Amino acid sequence: MDYGTLALERHQQAGGKIEITSRVTLKDAEDLAVYYTPGVASPCLAIKEDPAAASKYTSRDRLVAIVTDGSAILGLGNIGGLAGMPVMEGKAILFKHFAGIDAFPICLATQDPEEIIATVKNIAPGFGGINLEDIAAPACFEVERRLKQELHIPVFHDDQHGTAIVTCAALLNALRITKRSINSCKIVINGAGAAGSAIAQMAYNLGCRNILICDSKGILSSHRELSDAKKELLTFTNTENMEGLLKDAIVDADVFIGVSAPGVLTGDMVKTMAKDPIIFAMANPIPEIFPEEAKKAGAAVIGTGRSDFPNQINNVLVFPSLFRGALDAKATTITEEMLLAAVHALADSIPAEKLCAENILPTVFDKNAANHLANAVKCAWEHR
Amino acid sequence: MDYGTLALERHQQAGGKIEITSRVTLKDAEDLAVYYTPGVASPCLAIKEDPAAASKYTSRDRLVAIVTDGSAILGLGNIGGLAGMPVMEGKAILFKHFAGIDAFPICLATQDPEEIIATVKNIAPGFGGINLEDIAAPACFEVERRLKQELHIPVFHDDQHGTAIVTCAALLNALRITKRSINSCKIVINGAGAAGSAIAQMAYNLGCRNILICDSKGILSSHRELSDAKKELLTFTNTENMEGLLKDAIVDADVFIGVSAPGVLTGDMVKTMAKDPIIFAMANPIPEIFPEEAKKAGAAVIGTGRSDFPNQINNVLVFPSLFRGALDAKATTITEEMLLAAVHALADSIPAEKLCAENILPTVFDKNAANHLANAVKCAWEHR
Repeated sequence: MDYGTLALERHQQAGGKIEITSRVTLKDAEDLAVYYTPGVASPCLAIKEDPAAASKYTSRDRLVAIVTDGSAILGLGNIGGLAGMPVMEGKAILFKHFAGIDAFPICLATQDPEEIIATVKNIAPGFGGINLEDIAAPACFEVERRLKQELHIPVFHDDQHGTAIVTCAALLNALRITKRSINSCKIVINGAGAAGSAIAQMAYNLGCRNILICDSKGILSSHRELSDAKKELLTFTNTENMEGLLKDAIVDADVFIGVSAPGVLTGDMVKTMAKDPIIFAMANPIPEIFPEEAKKAGAAVIGTGRSDFPNQINNVLVFPSLFRGALDAKATTITEEMLLAAVHALADSIPAEKLCAENILPTVFDKNAANHLANAVKCAWEHR
Repeated sequence: MDYGTLALERHQQAGGKIEITSRVTLKDAEDLAVYYTPGVASPCLAIKEDPAAASKYTSRDRLVAIVTDGSAILGLGNIGGLAGMPVMEGKAILFKHFAGIDAFPICLATQDPEEIIATVKNIAPGFGGINLEDIAAPACFEVERRLKQELHIPVFHDDQHGTAIVTCAALLNALRITKRSINSCKIVINGAGAAGSAIAQMAYNLGCRNILICDSKGILSSHRELSDAKKELLTFTNTENMEGLLKDAIVDADVFIGVSAPGVLTGDMVKTMAKDPIIFAMANPIPEIFPEEAKKAGAAVIGTGRSDFPNQINNVLVFPSLFRGALDAKATTITEEMLLAAVHALADSIPAEKLCAENILPTVFDKNAANHLANAVKCAWEHR
C-alpha cells in the first residue's frame, strides 16, 4: 500500500485534521450573555481570586500543547515547524481519540533552546500539559529539563519517554518469553539521540547493568570525543569502556534496540548475538533489519515501528493514556515513578496466556490497555 | 437577570467551552497509517518543498490565535492571562458559531510588549491569523504595529478595530436617521485607550474633521503632558487645541461616544449638545449614561454595549466575519480599506425601510449581515 499518495489525497480532502468546537450551545442572546459578556466576567474574577478555579470554569485542564520546533520530524530530519504540522495534527487527533484529551499543535518558528523555553513558558497558562515533540537532541534535553523545573504542569518529551516506555514494555515481555532477566541481559542500543538516550536510561532504571550505546561512529566510550549529552550516558553504560563499532558491540548481546537508520543491522551481525536474541528494529519506515532476515539469522522476538509487521512498537500506545493519567491526577509534573508505572502497566496488559513472540504489546485500539496505563500513572502520582 | 451567577453555574457544568476534535475518522490501523505514520510524512515533505501547501494539507488557514496578556480584560482591568481565559474561550466559540473559524485561546504569562511580540512570532507558523485581545493601551499599539509588519498573516486587535468598526457603522446609520453628514458633525469621544483611539482614527478616515477626545483628565490638547500615543491623536483631533473637561467638550457636539466609565455623562451635559444628539454609551456593564436618562435629556439615537437595551454596539458583529473574509481572500494583512469596507457593509446591512432610531445595527444572529461583511472584506483585499 502506498500510504504516501493516499495520505496526500486524504489530507487534502479533509483540509486539515483538527477543528475547535464549542461544548456549549449558542442559540440566543441569553446564551451570549451567559457564555460571553456580561456573564463571563464572573468566572474571570473567580479565577483572578483563585487561579485553581480555572480547573472548574475553563478547558485548561483538558488542553495539552503539542510543541515542536520541527528539528527532528519523524525520520525526515530538520524540516521546520510548519512542515511538521501534519504530524502534530495527527498527534492531536490521537490524543482525542485514545484519551479524550484536547491537544493543540504549536509549531514554532524558532529552534533556539532559550527561545523555545521562553515561548512555551509564555503560552503555558492556558494549558494543562506540554507534550514536546520531534525536537532534536541535544536541545531537547535542556528544553525538557528547564520546562519541567520552571512549570508546574506535566511536561513530557514524547520522543524520549514515550519511546522509552513502549520499548521497555516490549522488552520486558520479550525477556519473559525468552526466559531472561533484565538484570543480567546485555542490551545494545543503536542511536544516541533523544530516543536512544531515554531508552538506555529507562533500561538502567529497570535494572539492566550491561548496556552499550552506539551512534553512527560506533560505541560511546571515553576514548572518543563526545558531546556533553553523550558523555553523561557513559555514567551508566559501557562500564568496561569498550571501543569499537556496532558489529563489535553486538557480539553476545541479548537485545538489539535500533532507533537509528535503515539496514544498519545485518543477518551476520545477528548471528554473533547470544542465543534467541531480541531484535527491536524501529527505524521508520525502513527498519535496521527486516523481520524476515532477522528471523532467518536466529532472532527469537522481533519488533519494528511499522504497523504491517507483528509487534509494532509505537508511542501512540503511551502518550495519550500517560497524559490522561497525569491530568486526572492533577499531577504538577511527570515523575520517574510515573514513567516506570507506565512501562509495567503496558507490559502487563498482555495476559500471560496470550503472550508470545508475535504478541508482546497490545494494539492501540485496546481500550483496556489504555485505561490500565492511565490508571497506573495516576496511582503512581497519588502514591508518590 | 443575574448573569454572573448563571455564568458560574453554566461554565462549571460545561467544564470549559472549547474542545479540539478530529475532522477525520480513526477506526483502524489503515486510518492510523494514512493520518499518522508512515503516511503523514508525505504532506510534511510537500510543505517543506512548498510552505504554501500547508493550506492544502493542514488546518492552518482555518486557525486563528486569540492572544491576550490579560492586561485589560473586559472592564475588569489587569487580571492576567489565565483569568482572561473564559473570555478567550467565549471568543473562540463565537468565531466558530458565527464564521466557522477555528480559534484557539493563547493566554500569555507575560505583559512585556517585546516578549508578547516574540512569543506570537514564534507560534505564528501554525496559524492563519492573529486576533489580539484585551491588551491594554499603549502596549497594544506597538504589539499590533510590529506584528503586522513582521508577520504575513492577518493581525487584528479587536479592542481597537472591531470596536471602531461596529461603532462607526452604528454612527453612520445614526447620522442618516438624524440627517447629518459625518463631514460636518462634531464628535466627542470619552476614553483615549485602545477603543477610543481607534474610533477616533476611523471617524477621521470616514471624513469627520471635528473630533475631541477626552480621557479621565479632560480634553486631549497640547496644553497637557501626554503620552506619545495620546500625542499622536492630536495630529487629527482638537484642531483648535481646546482645553477643558468633558463637560466643556460636549457643548454643541452632535455625537457622544463613550468607551470609558459608568455614569460620567449626565443629562445636563446632554442638554448642552446640538439638537437631536447621538449618544453611544458603551461602558460595560454600567454605561456612561442610561438610555432612559439620555432620552429624557433629548438624545435622538442611543446605543450601549448591552444586549438588554436597543442598539447593542458589540464587536461580535465584526470579528468573526472580518476574519472569515480575510482568510477566504488569503489576505496577508488587514488593510485600512478592509476595515472601512467592513464599516460600510455593516451599516448597509440594515435596509433603509427598517432603519430607525431603535434599529441601527443588525443582530449578531443575522446571517446575511455576517456574510455581507465577510464578502466586503474579501473584495476589499482582492481589489486592493
